[in-house]
Amino acid sequence: MKAFDHRKYRAAPVINLPDRQWPNRTITRAPRWASVDLRDGNQALLEPMNVGQKRRLWALLVKLGFKEIEVGFPSASQPDYDFVRWLIEAKQIPDDVTLQVLVQAREDLILRTFDALKGAKRAIVHVYNSTSTVQRERVFGLDRDGIIKIASQGAAMVKREADKHPETEWTFEYSPESFSNTEVDFAVAVCEAVMDVWQPSAEKPCIINLPSTVESTTPNVYADQIEYFATRISRRDALILSVHTHNDRGCGVAAAELAVLAGADRVEGTLLGNGERTGNMDITTMAMNLYSQGVDPELDLSNPDEIIAVAQECTGIALHPRHPWFGELVYTAFSGSHQDAIRKCLHQQKEDEPWQVAYLPIDPKDLGRDYQAVIRVNSQSGKGGVAFVLERDYGLVLPRWLQVDLAQVVQKASEARSGEIDGASIHALFRQNFVVDQGAVALHGYQIRHEGGHDVVEATISENGAQRQLHGEGEGALSAFIDALMRFSGRQINVVDYSEHAIGAGTDAEAAAYVQLNINGQRYSGAGFDHDTVSASLKAVLSALNRACSIAGEAMAA
Amino acid sequence: MKAFDHRKYRAAPVINLPDRQWPNRTITRAPRWASVDLRDGNQALLEPMNVGQKRRLWALLVKLGFKEIEVGFPSASQPDYDFVRWLIEAKQIPDDVTLQVLVQAREDLILRTFDALKGAKRAIVHVYNSTSTVQRERVFGLDRDGIIKIASQGAAMVKREADKHPETEWTFEYSPESFSNTEVDFAVAVCEAVMDVWQPSAEKPCIINLPSTVESTTPNVYADQIEYFATRISRRDALILSVHTHNDRGCGVAAAELAVLAGADRVEGTLLGNGERTGNMDITTMAMNLYSQGVDPELDLSNPDEIIAVAQECTGIALHPRHPWFGELVYTAFSGSHQDAIRKCLHQQKEDEPWQVAYLPIDPKDLGRDYQAVIRVNSQSGKGGVAFVLERDYGLVLPRWLQVDLAQVVQKASEARSGEIDGASIHALFRQNFVVDQGAVALHGYQIRHEGGHDVVEATISENGAQRQLHGEGEGALSAFIDALMRFSGRQINVVDYSEHAIGAGTDAEAAAYVQLNINGQRYSGAGFDHDTVSASLKAVLSALNRACSIAGEAMAA
Repeated sequence: MKAFDHRKYRAAPVINLPDRQWPNRTITRAPRWASVDLRDGNQALLEPMNVGQKRRLWALLVKLGFKEIEVGFPSASQPDYDFVRWLIEAKQIPDDVTLQVLVQAREDLILRTFDALKGAKRAIVHVYNSTSTVQRERVFGLDRDGIIKIASQGAAMVKREADKHPETEWTFEYSPESFSNTEVDFAVAVCEAVMDVWQPSAEKPCIINLPSTVESTTPNVYADQIEYFATRISRRDALILSVHTHNDRGCGVAAAELAVLAGADRVEGTLLGNGERTGNMDITTMAMNLYSQGVDPELDLSNPDEIIAVAQECTGIALHPRHPWFGELVYTAFSGSHQDAIRKCLHQQKEDEPWQVAYLPIDPKDLGRDYQAVIRVNSQSGKGGVAFVLERDYGLVLPRWLQVDLAQVVQKASEARSGEIDGASIHALFRQNFVVDQGAVALHGYQIRHEGGHDVVEATISENGAQRQLHGEGEGALSAFIDALMRFSGRQINVVDYSEHAIGAGTDAEAAAYVQLNINGQRYSGAGFDHDTVSASLKAVLSALNRACSIAGEAMAA
Repeated sequence: MKAFDHRKYRAAPVINLPDRQWPNRTITRAPRWASVDLRDGNQALLEPMNVGQKRRLWALLVKLGFKEIEVGFPSASQPDYDFVRWLIEAKQIPDDVTLQVLVQAREDLILRTFDALKGAKRAIVHVYNSTSTVQRERVFGLDRDGIIKIASQGAAMVKREADKHPETEWTFEYSPESFSNTEVDFAVAVCEAVMDVWQPSAEKPCIINLPSTVESTTPNVYADQIEYFATRISRRDALILSVHTHNDRGCGVAAAELAVLAGADRVEGTLLGNGERTGNMDITTMAMNLYSQGVDPELDLSNPDEIIAVAQECTGIALHPRHPWFGELVYTAFSGSHQDAIRKCLHQQKEDEPWQVAYLPIDPKDLGRDYQAVIRVNSQSGKGGVAFVLERDYGLVLPRWLQVDLAQVVQKASEARSGEIDGASIHALFRQNFVVDQGAVALHGYQIRHEGGHDVVEATISENGAQRQLHGEGEGALSAFIDALMRFSGRQINVVDYSEHAIGAGTDAEAAAYVQLNINGQRYSGAGFDHDTVSASLKAVLSALNRACSIAGEAMAA
């Protein structure tokens, strides 16, 4: 019925590189990172980011320590143009950060690009054209000389326009787009032509970026291509060799890592791997890979929950629970033998010696997480006992992260009592630990005004008896309430996850709301119940806050 | 405040392999696949699979073409024991499929394992112990000889028990667990000791499986370890070299691929990469990688939506929209230049020549998908126009997949009218195409009985005027209704995705339901509206069905 037939496809060519050196090397320092979240990432969204989202993502990228940030394609998109203007005019670019913009090798687009960049202190102009066989033959109908001509003319226009604006410190970047599907000797020839125009030097190098626009080989072949290029190109000391991989075969990070072994100095990618189709290479993963091997990642990834929250808000894509380093299940052990090994290793781990713990490649505390040993209360039934009992007996459908948190509370209680724990006790433990909207912090009343997609909340809360008026704003009641609490407490609060459901049916239905907050780098879960869903969600937030206060043993107020 | 300090970690050692051969090779045939979904995958779930889920997953694995399936750890888990007994006693194992079970190298566990396997025609007994430095020193407190002794004693017990049951055709498998963190010369020594006991031959080989239990190096280092092992181990023709990688650094697939270059014959993994922490290596991705290079994957992956549906039902984990090959955004192009290149290539693509289309590594139709060119109706606003208009003007919050489907309908209409399209027209197109619960197929009434977590539906529908009584069962009204439609139509129907929301508030609120079905390998979206959420969801299903009938131009009834 369907044409599932591998014979339609042919293997991508490999190159002969008998003296390759990259497999003999290890990575001992981080490459130069370049974020393309606001360009390649944004371009791949069904709903492109609005201005507020772009500003938040920009602020996060700067905070994490990115020094080169590609912010858009200003000549092709008015919102990108406006955003570049705002960054420059509102002086949003720190002294050590360089703006990068993408443009095709076409005169009208290049002129408009330089318009967009007027007044920038420093900028990278990234010009590209497609060079692969299929693009030459089927898209452009040009031979190799024709493609080289597009590239060198584009390079000349960029140089000419830059010369007109000496007040900006320019860096030029060229990409032979779809490099990995281009004959590598031809890629070298195109880049030589571009460099003949730009005349880069060791003091004023250009960037040559070699994209795997569509990943189509095992990652070692890409590394061979990079090493071939790096060892054949002239003026090697006058260029910064950059790579830009995609994840079509699920090997985007591996390809970038092997490319760095093969000589790449710089890596373009995105937070959590957002980007076209299967995504760009994931800089957060590669940076954590380096970190776990004792290499300074040169990015501050110590608060992944903030990264996850901003990325999800901007892309509309939730993090997979098994995402390397950051996923919610990554530091969770279910197997008894794993738990036993981890316990023994943690017990023997000394402060001043290198980390040596089986099944935990890093200390989860580095990322504000805890190691979670999940004991199944009721393994005989093949059901995750805690969740099963609460749903069957109480109609509560706990999200996975709350099941994990509760399982640990139940486990501790069960060890203390040294025996089985029944459904009523599990329910009591759940309420005592996670439904505490009338604890040290309590909500006395609130008003919400909804105006043009924007919510303003005025709330009265008390902390240990003292009443306070809170004011906050945001998109949605929950965001506005979190904003109010951040202003009140001076703490950074991110919503890691949220869910709700009805208990019962009809007008008697009660709403259950569950929220996980990250408060100053630590995660706390809470639940709330009310006939009204907004009230239930605000109560869930207070429960999480009270849990944070009781665990940390400190007051919320700043 | 927080300890984000790379200096706590040290780099994993690398091995010196100056004459390595693997980078000179390419993969020209699929390895032997072994699924560990029902063992490693199941073990990593917060809520382990119930019996029904295990049976469905087993049936799917067999249908896809797996010939070796690890189904559990019967000596450590009663549900696993019971499942193995059911497979054997209910004769669920096809002649060309071999059951595999895992067991630690301990006598009591090995005895119980052979109990579980009694009466099996063929079986792989997979025995393991931990060999890494940290496990030796910190978990077991044993030196190298002590670890070798555990391994060879375990191997001897397995052989002794197997000899008692000559009616079963036994294969032995040994894993030095945490191989990739074991000194490779010691791993060779342990495996030699095991093979000294088993005395495998070319006619009756054993399996030696080398796990990267926790991924901790760039994938080329793992490939070096595999090549080192493969070229140093004795009796190479008497063993099947197997690899089992995890994804802690996001390179689990890359590591398995490079390991196959380095000499591995066999790959253990899971569907979509489910498994401990960040997951096992993803067999579906690696198999599709081979497929896209013209290599027979030796698995039938032509209906990914069935794989996605069963995997999600069994693991509770949704597929990431950018998952390689199968994610919902993988064949979507937003950029005008990408769309232009794809259009030109598709136009020139001939039936009988190898596939050559920029940005589409395979023909999406091979997987029952369509290439989706998404034009933004309103790119100036930076909002995905279609979705924005429907939400602002009609309160409809379309899920992403329905936005994509609608965007294409709107685009075609816009090309036909050669002009801008207003909000009312977009809404009309949405209703005409996706809200057709009174089309060729119509619902006249239904009853649902909910008994013990199980739903039974009796429905009256008509198709082109002819009334029919339908009966179906399932967990939840939607599942039961889908079951009824499958019985009625003889078609395979999977729910790819589902969402709902309220429009308005209070007792006047109307429910909106959106569903995407896969009907015999093709995806169709539909929407339904009603004051009752169940009715809304059944109407959404009918809308999708009517859309399928009108696109395919055929009746539903078998």
